[in-house]
Amino acid sequence: MSTVEKVKGIIRDVPNFPKPGILFKDITPLLADSQLVHEVMRELVADFKHQGFDAIAGIESRGFIFGSLLAYELQIPFVPIRKSGKLPYKTLSESYNLEYGQATIEIHEDAIKPGSKVLIHDDLLATGGTAAAAARLVNKLGARAEAFSFLINLSFLKGDQILFNEFGVKPHYLISY
Amino acid sequence: MSTVEKVKGIIRDVPNFPKPGILFKDITPLLADSQLVHEVMRELVADFKHQGFDAIAGIESRGFIFGSLLAYELQIPFVPIRKSGKLPYKTLSESYNLEYGQATIEIHEDAIKPGSKVLIHDDLLATGGTAAAAARLVNKLGARAEAFSFLINLSFLKGDQILFNEFGVKPHYLISY
Repeated sequence: MSTVEKVKGIIRDVPNFPKPGILFKDITPLLADSQLVHEVMRELVADFKHQGFDAIAGIESRGFIFGSLLAYELQIPFVPIRKSGKLPYKTLSESYNLEYGQATIEIHEDAIKPGSKVLIHDDLLATGGTAAAAARLVNKLGARAEAFSFLINLSFLKGDQILFNEFGVKPHYLISY
Repeated sequence: MSTVEKVKGIIRDVPNFPKPGILFKDITPLLADSQLVHEVMRELVADFKHQGFDAIAGIESRGFIFGSLLAYELQIPFVPIRKSGKLPYKTLSESYNLEYGQATIEIHEDAIKPGSKVLIHDDLLATGGTAAAAARLVNKLGARAEAFSFLINLSFLKGDQILFNEFGVKPHYLISY
């Protein structure tokens, strides 16, 4: 079986979470399968290792998991992008629209050297709002959000097109629904 | 310079965060130093690899970072322990006291096999309230919270004694203030 098939087989569908009508893709069974995590990492590293990234920016919270592993394997800095009020030092912030209201994420203003090539990582691409805000934060620091990595793409929400339209890059993902 | 000295030198003190009078220990400069992250991981893996842990439980959010790396290097499952309402599947929850009010954390009820030996990880040990609640969650699943791992211990808050009194183990940490 291919890695993609194995990952598709292990992701758990949880209906009506976080609210009625949403089918949540739960990656915790993948995290519990260390062998498959290593297999996923081998694929991701093969895809990214020759792209010359200078840092991985991972989006709180689930983006910290494979984001840290990617930075570790690629031997480059890991930069946490967090919800508003969580980062202790001076930050830049970026707000984006949710279905109802707004959300804000932040990055430390000294987190990334200007000119750096940055890979943005989160576990799941839905509408792309959070990832786009993360990429804007990276760009505000004078670095370049050059690529996006997700484990899962919910293609029917067209987040991949939204990211392509704003940043001119096609997001990378392992599996798509 | 020893790893401990290097880590002490790179952790950033942020005064008055998250509130007046608190001196916050910021690990983001460590995360930006990939070589030092690898050096820290070599130390942690050397300390833990012969202890036969079956899983690492990492506490949201900062505990996801080195928690994931530890699980990856030890080739065992990573189990996220999250703030209330974040985990999508059936959960057990545990509340604990904060300075004002209470906090609640959760674990998936199928996250860990009964009888497993579990290492609890977070980046910082303060009063020990969150780590103790995490260990109780693990124990409620019929597994055993056998050890605690932190990067930083704030010894003046005596969290290490609180964990020792309740669980009979001395927490492991890299640096202490």
